[in-house]
Amino acid sequence: MDYYKKALELHEENMGKWAVSSKVPLNDRDDLSTAYTPGVAQPCREIEKDYENIYRYTSKQNTVAVITDGSAVLGLGNIGADASIPVMEGKAVLFKGFAGIDALPICIKTQDVDEFCNIVKNISSTFGGINLEDISAPRCFEIENRLKRELNIPVFHDDQHGTAVVVSAAAINALKLIGKKMEDCTAVIAGAGAAGTAIARMLVNLGIKDILVCGRDGIICSSSPRLNDAKRDLLKVVNREDRSGSIHDAMEGADIFIGVSAPKLITADDVRKMADSPVVFAMSNPEPEIMPDEAARGGAAIIGTGRSDFNNQINNVLAFPGIFRGALDARAEQITEEMKVAAAYALAGFVSEEELCPEKILPNAFEEGISDAVAKAVADAWINRK
Amino acid sequence: MDYYKKALELHEENMGKWAVSSKVPLNDRDDLSTAYTPGVAQPCREIEKDYENIYRYTSKQNTVAVITDGSAVLGLGNIGADASIPVMEGKAVLFKGFAGIDALPICIKTQDVDEFCNIVKNISSTFGGINLEDISAPRCFEIENRLKRELNIPVFHDDQHGTAVVVSAAAINALKLIGKKMEDCTAVIAGAGAAGTAIARMLVNLGIKDILVCGRDGIICSSSPRLNDAKRDLLKVVNREDRSGSIHDAMEGADIFIGVSAPKLITADDVRKMADSPVVFAMSNPEPEIMPDEAARGGAAIIGTGRSDFNNQINNVLAFPGIFRGALDARAEQITEEMKVAAAYALAGFVSEEELCPEKILPNAFEEGISDAVAKAVADAWINRK
Repeated sequence: MDYYKKALELHEENMGKWAVSSKVPLNDRDDLSTAYTPGVAQPCREIEKDYENIYRYTSKQNTVAVITDGSAVLGLGNIGADASIPVMEGKAVLFKGFAGIDALPICIKTQDVDEFCNIVKNISSTFGGINLEDISAPRCFEIENRLKRELNIPVFHDDQHGTAVVVSAAAINALKLIGKKMEDCTAVIAGAGAAGTAIARMLVNLGIKDILVCGRDGIICSSSPRLNDAKRDLLKVVNREDRSGSIHDAMEGADIFIGVSAPKLITADDVRKMADSPVVFAMSNPEPEIMPDEAARGGAAIIGTGRSDFNNQINNVLAFPGIFRGALDARAEQITEEMKVAAAYALAGFVSEEELCPEKILPNAFEEGISDAVAKAVADAWINRK
Repeated sequence: MDYYKKALELHEENMGKWAVSSKVPLNDRDDLSTAYTPGVAQPCREIEKDYENIYRYTSKQNTVAVITDGSAVLGLGNIGADASIPVMEGKAVLFKGFAGIDALPICIKTQDVDEFCNIVKNISSTFGGINLEDISAPRCFEIENRLKRELNIPVFHDDQHGTAVVVSAAAINALKLIGKKMEDCTAVIAGAGAAGTAIARMLVNLGIKDILVCGRDGIICSSSPRLNDAKRDLLKVVNREDRSGSIHDAMEGADIFIGVSAPKLITADDVRKMADSPVVFAMSNPEPEIMPDEAARGGAAIIGTGRSDFNNQINNVLAFPGIFRGALDARAEQITEEMKVAAAYALAGFVSEEELCPEKILPNAFEEGISDAVAKAVADAWINRK
């Protein structure tokens, strides 16, 4: 199937993908006087009196802004705000389709961190949450941290945390199948950008024994070249023995391989070096770090990719709609680590004991009720926070 | 009818007024691969190659941002970004209902002109046009001028130009009825803010002989206190004899009174001082500068207000949907004076010779085809520009 050609046709025929609709009737003067002047003055006054009323009388409570600076769009790189619009429109309609959330695309031209954060803060009034998207590392870490600190609505960089949640759910179910505990496992993560960093942190939170994160210069360790603040921070929680070497060295004895990097990075021989019952999640898209058949030849017990044409697609759409749905429903002021962990367990638990097998460790994105299940877990985690 | 109470109920029941919808199907993996990854990469690449493709593959061409800083909202004043949301959501759904335009509300927290302009420019990628709304004078003039200069999409401050277009249309038809020519008429405008200033400039463009604009200190003239740059600029085209005095002095001999100021400003005696067949547009809302019955007692030949419960409602909704529809359809880079004049004549012409009478100088907002007629005139004016 030529998705590129089909996508151009779809986008042109529909003039883009998202639209606005009205939730109120506009059929006569009476409607106009209620939805607009003079009636509209009253909800304005109520919000001016008490900020909480913004959640009562506006669409804020169901609205998420999908915001990018176009600096790291899909595998296309730094294509800028204008060219990133189709992705952000796509994300917006996924929010609607999978969780009933009204999401709108905002593509910001500046790539200056201060200016970007200032803009997002200044336009946040109408949004109940902010989904950051396709922002390059390490800038994405600072942007997200600052916005989380300075805004009272959930801010969530999906490339980091959405990916981390789905990988975690996949890992939880994979380990269940092969009978290992998180505490006894080590992992190798290929890719030290937004996704790799967030996956590493989340797996540490889930109790994994140790992780080697590999960038372009091999295993990230205290003597790596080009260590930035983000990588130095990461080293506080991973690579406890400060090992160095190549990605191939890293594979030695690892229980789980997680690829969020580049095609054809590892081989069947690398998989053979791993511990018993190796788990391989090769998510580089469209071409994985290792093709499933080659991973199988190397003895992989569980294999996942980012692609829909193989088993076990590890796809963010399993997580972000439900996570935001839950955060909005609970009026959470942020999306905490506990909420992400709850989302991962809810997603893992969505695959029943009967269904769970090496070929199915995650639900199919179109199964009914996924986002509801994730949303409930996420909302509960906020409501029951300590 | 208690619109305030009804409006609170409407806003609460519907959780605000606007929503997002998808223009593309999302029913299976195939849909997902076309609307999102991997297919979505292709329209991104095409836009990166050629900016023009943004109008081919995204919703930009049908999207307008309704942007405010909350500094001059309705008659409520400077209530800020948060409290202004219901008005901006209302405007957004009017765009959809009256012209099929996908409009979204953006409420910006800063009221610093530089910062505001910088933010709007930086978030403009996804928008085909920008409707500025409820921004206080004289800041609104600088903001609009700068954004018009620096963006290649239409920027239109509706409080100024939407009002000016509808008042102009009303004036065109009123003069037709009483048999006067624009060139022979003088006008008094009460209110020297965004609307008053724009109405004055537009009537000058339409050929009116002279205008006295009155602010809080009476007729604006070279010796007025508190003259700012905007008022000094305005004085280059109005009050040619540099008259001074009160609003009551101004009324002497005037052909048209236009009020965009405050309730109960003038009396029947003021109307009696006007020229033969006085035209009175008293648009202060909800309470006009003079009530229609009192204006009639003073001998007014044609009376309009901003209210829907009297004849001749002078309402922006007659203009802005069609103006943006036309500008978007023609891919206009701005909304020029010629386009506004074309809109005014199209709106005036929408009332047929048979219908035209002192009680009906403007169409009813819900008559079919108004925005189409205005859009066509506006698009033609752009396409045929010199």
